[in-house]
Amino acid sequence: MDVTQADIATLRTEIGSGRLSVPQVVEAHLDRIAALDAGIGAYVHVDADGARQAALARPAGPLAGIPFGVKDVLDTADMPTEQGSTLYSDYQPPFDAGSVARLRHAGGIVLGKTATAEFAGTAPAATCHPKDPSRTPGGSSSGSAAAVAAGMATFALGTQTGGSVMRPAAFCGVAGFKPTFGSWPISGMLPAAHGFDTVGVIARSANDLAEVHAAMMRLPVPSAPETVPSVGLCRTHLWDTVSEEAARVVEAAAQAFSRAGARVADVPLPQEFAALTAHRRLVNAFERAANMEGWAGAIGSARTESQEVFSRGLTVDGASYIAAAAALDRARADLDALFGDHAILLTAVTPGVAPVGLGSTGDPRLQELWSTLRCPAVTVTFGTGTGGLPLGVQLVARPWSDLQLLDAARWLETLRS
Amino acid sequence: MDVTQADIATLRTEIGSGRLSVPQVVEAHLDRIAALDAGIGAYVHVDADGARQAALARPAGPLAGIPFGVKDVLDTADMPTEQGSTLYSDYQPPFDAGSVARLRHAGGIVLGKTATAEFAGTAPAATCHPKDPSRTPGGSSSGSAAAVAAGMATFALGTQTGGSVMRPAAFCGVAGFKPTFGSWPISGMLPAAHGFDTVGVIARSANDLAEVHAAMMRLPVPSAPETVPSVGLCRTHLWDTVSEEAARVVEAAAQAFSRAGARVADVPLPQEFAALTAHRRLVNAFERAANMEGWAGAIGSARTESQEVFSRGLTVDGASYIAAAAALDRARADLDALFGDHAILLTAVTPGVAPVGLGSTGDPRLQELWSTLRCPAVTVTFGTGTGGLPLGVQLVARPWSDLQLLDAARWLETLRS
Repeated sequence: MDVTQADIATLRTEIGSGRLSVPQVVEAHLDRIAALDAGIGAYVHVDADGARQAALARPAGPLAGIPFGVKDVLDTADMPTEQGSTLYSDYQPPFDAGSVARLRHAGGIVLGKTATAEFAGTAPAATCHPKDPSRTPGGSSSGSAAAVAAGMATFALGTQTGGSVMRPAAFCGVAGFKPTFGSWPISGMLPAAHGFDTVGVIARSANDLAEVHAAMMRLPVPSAPETVPSVGLCRTHLWDTVSEEAARVVEAAAQAFSRAGARVADVPLPQEFAALTAHRRLVNAFERAANMEGWAGAIGSARTESQEVFSRGLTVDGASYIAAAAALDRARADLDALFGDHAILLTAVTPGVAPVGLGSTGDPRLQELWSTLRCPAVTVTFGTGTGGLPLGVQLVARPWSDLQLLDAARWLETLRS
Repeated sequence: MDVTQADIATLRTEIGSGRLSVPQVVEAHLDRIAALDAGIGAYVHVDADGARQAALARPAGPLAGIPFGVKDVLDTADMPTEQGSTLYSDYQPPFDAGSVARLRHAGGIVLGKTATAEFAGTAPAATCHPKDPSRTPGGSSSGSAAAVAAGMATFALGTQTGGSVMRPAAFCGVAGFKPTFGSWPISGMLPAAHGFDTVGVIARSANDLAEVHAAMMRLPVPSAPETVPSVGLCRTHLWDTVSEEAARVVEAAAQAFSRAGARVADVPLPQEFAALTAHRRLVNAFERAANMEGWAGAIGSARTESQEVFSRGLTVDGASYIAAAAALDRARADLDALFGDHAILLTAVTPGVAPVGLGSTGDPRLQELWSTLRCPAVTVTFGTGTGGLPLGVQLVARPWSDLQLLDAARWLETLRS
């Protein structure tokens, strides 16, 4: 068994049986980082000593001995938290973020901090796609996705305001989960646009996503799902942005659900939801600029993209922001009707495979639609496209139906050919 | 004119006309702090030099030269931010909170950091009521309310998760505003229970609240309201917790609105809203403990009340939290029907005047009901009770109707006898 490719349940079994020690698990990952990360750039800080000490301290709990990475917009008491920015060079927070601490207390071992776009925004991290260095790994949780895809962590925490967990997970061919807005602790997370910001996780499988969610929410370790959900295929007003090969993978997932006995039906997105992309843009710009206001005196040292975000946000007047934010709330109130009798919506996650070029982390629109609505979302790989690169699909559920969502994703993974 | 009792518009006029200089305004407040604060304990840190320098730097903007206090759970780049706790002794954040920076950029001058209950929770600050040192000023924004009431700041930022702006403002006989959840920037604010946390403001009048809101939201400085709102008198399921004298003040406000030409009608709170208090308790406990998880190794040094909050939160299982959080979302979706054709609800803000004793900051239930629903809320003083102490009322509006709410509060203030 390759320790750096194993999932959480396998590692737990191997460690529990004594066939594998926690220090062995940690060393295997540190070795892999030493061998590969110079060419990928997933980590901005590796705490080998800290990880080794934690491994020797007999970790206990549902994630005992599982090594993970932490996006560098989440505070760590024992490592700097630089937000992908020279504005926070060497900044050392006093305490762990709530999300980090909870996983540590569940036995998880932090290997290091993963690269992020500056301020979890649009200025890309210096991370490349593990399968093709000419391509973006996606972002803003670039390092988290690349680390998991390359076997340099069993899972990694990320954050999503637009599509910052879903997109890199899909591009890198791994699984990603953005829980219901507000369900995971936010202490020690850099606020970007606070109406959308959510801590999330990238892992090797939907089952691992469910394991991390259970640890974070103090729920029992999940058992395998027993029922097939009712699935609505929702192409959205953005369907014409989806490439033929990505669309084919979404259709294949719908057919797989159907063959497995799920009721699958088209769910058209009501006309008014098409306005969400524009409303979201206004709210995002206004909130990001407001939260950045404390950096105003230093913003000239930030990257061009971040300076532009700040400037653009300052052009949004308060009245427009209020109108857009209220419109988003109305759309959220209509979500229940949108889902109807479907527990899950199936939709596209990206327009296609990871694009060539490291100057952009890709198109966020297909992912951000559901962040805007505060729904939980999962992406799992369901095929390949150009150059043999992975293609994912996205599953979405009503807010607070995270467990049903994760069950559906686990189902779907069992249906892959 | 007493500079330390003047409102924002008056100070703006006096400064604009040259009858008063910004350094004079700042010195008057520093003198007042030096004279009074040893007996009140509103400030935990006063930056006299910083305030003087800012006064000499020719501040510009809608709040030019207006001195304000900042609750010590909001980051300041030039002063420590101690969260009311020895866990954060001397902690110096790298940047201003977004809310603080925005007001500074509007010309406001920070005098210092105001005392807070530990972590904006229940362990009281060492602040007493400006009118009676045997009584609590309310909390958790204790210092902010006491500073404004005692003329030691023109206004002060606070935060509210339950009733932490409304309650101290009402007890201290000043005005308080908690905007719509999510509308003011949250960067640099200590998360408590993130589903409810909102930055707010305490000031001398509803007009001043509107001025600060305009500066924060980059809206025009508000003109006087022209129309009388339609008011629903909402006694809530907590009406039997309200003292006779506090109830009388609420009824008097209803009558005043009515005499001024407002349509006033009773609005009963639907039966299911009575469950909100219990749901809110679960959600609050779970989220606070999750956000506190990073402090776990140091929590033994925190105050007893905070340790209990952490322990209690850890007893809430994830499934109960999810069920309660989903129930709160359903109640929020029913808000529009609750308001009906009323723009504003009028309700009680506290059970009575500030209670004797500094061991508790008072009963949060009447205030937290509306924080839970994410509504904007205002309190203004509308009478006196036991010992001549002030009694307030609370006005509430639909989310994102903050401007209408502030207009109604300004109306009500003009109707005081």
